[in-house]
Amino acid sequence: MSLPDYGRAFTLWRDAAPDWQAYTHHAFVAGLGDGSLPREAFLHYLRQDYVFLIHFARAWALAAVKADTLAEMQAASATLHALTQTEMPLHIRICGEAGISHEALQGTREADANLAYTRYVLEAGYSGDFLDLLAALAPCVLGYGEIGARLAGSGGPYADWTDTYGGSDYQQLCHDVGALIDTALVQRLGADWPSLPRAKTLAARFATATRLEAAFWDMGLRPDSAV
Amino acid sequence: MSLPDYGRAFTLWRDAAPDWQAYTHHAFVAGLGDGSLPREAFLHYLRQDYVFLIHFARAWALAAVKADTLAEMQAASATLHALTQTEMPLHIRICGEAGISHEALQGTREADANLAYTRYVLEAGYSGDFLDLLAALAPCVLGYGEIGARLAGSGGPYADWTDTYGGSDYQQLCHDVGALIDTALVQRLGADWPSLPRAKTLAARFATATRLEAAFWDMGLRPDSAV
Amino acid sequence: MSLPDYGRAFTLWRDAAPDWQAYTHHAFVAGLGDGSLPREAFLHYLRQDYVFLIHFARAWALAAVKADTLAEMQAASATLHALTQTEMPLHIRICGEAGISHEALQGTREADANLAYTRYVLEAGYSGDFLDLLAALAPCVLGYGEIGARLAGSGGPYADWTDTYGGSDYQQLCHDVGALIDTALVQRLGADWPSLPRAKTLAARFATATRLEAAFWDMGLRPDSAV
Amino acid sequence: MSLPDYGRAFTLWRDAAPDWQAYTHHAFVAGLGDGSLPREAFLHYLRQDYVFLIHFARAWALAAVKADTLAEMQAASATLHALTQTEMPLHIRICGEAGISHEALQGTREADANLAYTRYVLEAGYSGDFLDLLAALAPCVLGYGEIGARLAGSGGPYADWTDTYGGSDYQQLCHDVGALIDTALVQRLGADWPSLPRAKTLAARFATATRLEAAFWDMGLRPDSAV
Repeated sequence: MSLPDYGRAFTLWRDAAPDWQAYTHHAFVAGLGDGSLPREAFLHYLRQDYVFLIHFARAWALAAVKADTLAEMQAASATLHALTQTEMPLHIRICGEAGISHEALQGTREADANLAYTRYVLEAGYSGDFLDLLAALAPCVLGYGEIGARLAGSGGPYADWTDTYGGSDYQQLCHDVGALIDTALVQRLGADWPSLPRAKTLAARFATATRLEAAFWDMGLRPDSAV
Repeated sequence: MSLPDYGRAFTLWRDAAPDWQAYTHHAFVAGLGDGSLPREAFLHYLRQDYVFLIHFARAWALAAVKADTLAEMQAASATLHALTQTEMPLHIRICGEAGISHEALQGTREADANLAYTRYVLEAGYSGDFLDLLAALAPCVLGYGEIGARLAGSGGPYADWTDTYGGSDYQQLCHDVGALIDTALVQRLGADWPSLPRAKTLAARFATATRLEAAFWDMGLRPDSAV
Repeated sequence: MSLPDYGRAFTLWRDAAPDWQAYTHHAFVAGLGDGSLPREAFLHYLRQDYVFLIHFARAWALAAVKADTLAEMQAASATLHALTQTEMPLHIRICGEAGISHEALQGTREADANLAYTRYVLEAGYSGDFLDLLAALAPCVLGYGEIGARLAGSGGPYADWTDTYGGSDYQQLCHDVGALIDTALVQRLGADWPSLPRAKTLAARFATATRLEAAFWDMGLRPDSAV
Repeated sequence: MSLPDYGRAFTLWRDAAPDWQAYTHHAFVAGLGDGSLPREAFLHYLRQDYVFLIHFARAWALAAVKADTLAEMQAASATLHALTQTEMPLHIRICGEAGISHEALQGTREADANLAYTRYVLEAGYSGDFLDLLAALAPCVLGYGEIGARLAGSGGPYADWTDTYGGSDYQQLCHDVGALIDTALVQRLGADWPSLPRAKTLAARFATATRLEAAFWDMGLRPDSAV
């Protein structure tokens, strides 16, 4: 099965990230696909993901602050809006159905691996510019898309998860974000941007964020450990 | 006619801001109310306001980044969404009807008074916290509400403007923003926050932003001058 | 007399900034050179410059935060150190000799033109990256160098000022800052950076900051006006 | 032996941080004191500490940006200057003596635990204000002081390390930073600041940073592991 094509920058960055396979083919991911993931690990992940989503939404808000064009601002703002008004309430509902109350969610102690990833992304955005921020956000948005595209239709206890990220809505979002990144790069750095030193820095941001995503899955598999 | 009540912090800050009358009873504002404002000045204002709205939206996005609670993030995100998806397209349409093309809008040279105000707000937000940012944003949001409440129903060539800001939707927004500020203050500083040194800093932020709003109206009255 | 050469980026940006002459040949500057500047205006400028220096130092601190290399961090840190430990105490002493007490200095009401410039620079730095910040800082650092190089040795009541900025220490600083900018550009964007779209954005930042410097001199000539 | 007294805020925050003992009495620390720490672990720590110092210096630069007073700016600037002009060159020299070249240092792959801590501190500073930043910086500065005060004079292979942090220069720095924090708190929040809700947020920042410091020592003990 061929990989989805989310654009030029993503393809370059993915191919240069040493931990891309470790992230997208992680044991946690395999367990989502074949249903072998212990439910306890999934619930642990759901709780951590709630904390993650808050900081992820903050990072998209920062992208709106750092946008250069109205189109970039509208794209970042729409993602933020979807996250805060739709995905987070949905996440709270799903957790509720799984027996995790909103109070329990809010009381979740943020795991170090969770904190490491989100603060890395936010700091990259604060210290760098719009491109640095998107390069750090991309592994999450687009990696989930690639995983979802591969696992969609596998069925099993985690079919909701795999079909959400493999579904056409999320896949369209991935294509849109990929295009947002490609356009932003060309508008700032020109069509030959991959030949610039800046390209190495951006690829390194993507690679580090990818490594931290893999560490997030590691954490997901350790529901009992000190987080 | 009594002033609208947008909450405790707003009332304290307004009463302590030396330029509040200069801002809310500015000649530009009076001209909007009695219809005497030259159309050329209004068109000049509309163009500058387009540039202003972009940075104003960025400031609300920054509020979402700096929020401490999900409720704060959702409030800031909703305002950002309304600005980018509704108000800015509306503004572009209104300008179009007034003969200002979207290209002309995008080519507007930002007046110094415009730049001074928006960068002051954004820098206050970046360097301070959520409270600093809201104190700097409040004179714009709530001052327009107070002006609108006073001028609504005056009719004349600027009735659209006065009725928008005096209308129930915008007035509700003002009450919501006032409550957001009051709640944020108490959650961070406790009910007696006005007695803390921090209260002086926040009032000073509000007062400076108010002064810069008055200077924005001054600029509005000088459509021909070097901006 | 030929202009000093502070490097490639500076030369390109200066030549593209419409207000460079208005800034560097402003009536305030001419008055410093020929001694015709009213003393009252100079004292007004000194007071505003105290407030300016605080935010200017903060901007150099932000450059240290946003540096990509240890060499960049050390350069920014050294400038910050010189500003806070040497220039600001010196400024306070000079003002004292001119009859402005430290208390009076601290009580200076920041003029709008002062605020506009410094917040523009800081916001450029926060929202953009190291290059955006340096492009916004450059007109101040290097413009004073160019003015000083031209006016040094004119004598008169403002000889201290002109000889400081025209002196070898400050001229060396200008060459160092110019080299810092040139190196930072090449390290990020490659040797052909002037051909990239990014070059336009950076030149625009320089041009806007130049315009705000000219407005700062305008303000300097109005010691009696509402600031 | 009594603990050193670095001020009111530090004492409150330390007593409320669940991981303070885990951090200051970590096996890595004990090994520094009794000389049992494997040299390989110490060299691994030195390399990671080089990367750490860069981000730590950036955090102090951010404190200078976020300072409210000239005194705060000068204190932060002096620390930044000491770090970039004295401590980092010293660190490079010590590493060189231990057989780690400057090139090897620069090529150090930042461990996740290192990244987690520094980005947490920087993000706290960017998103919050001066107080948030200092609360996140305090466990490192003052914890090393407390450890150094306890271990100074133990001798052994790590006597340089223990005597540096236990020495009077570093102990004075700790007292100065403690006083900086106490003064900043009172100037913003008043003398009763521990009773405000804000105190809980700041204590939580300190506690999280403390936990991340303990995780940094954990990493120090694993020189062979995937970082």
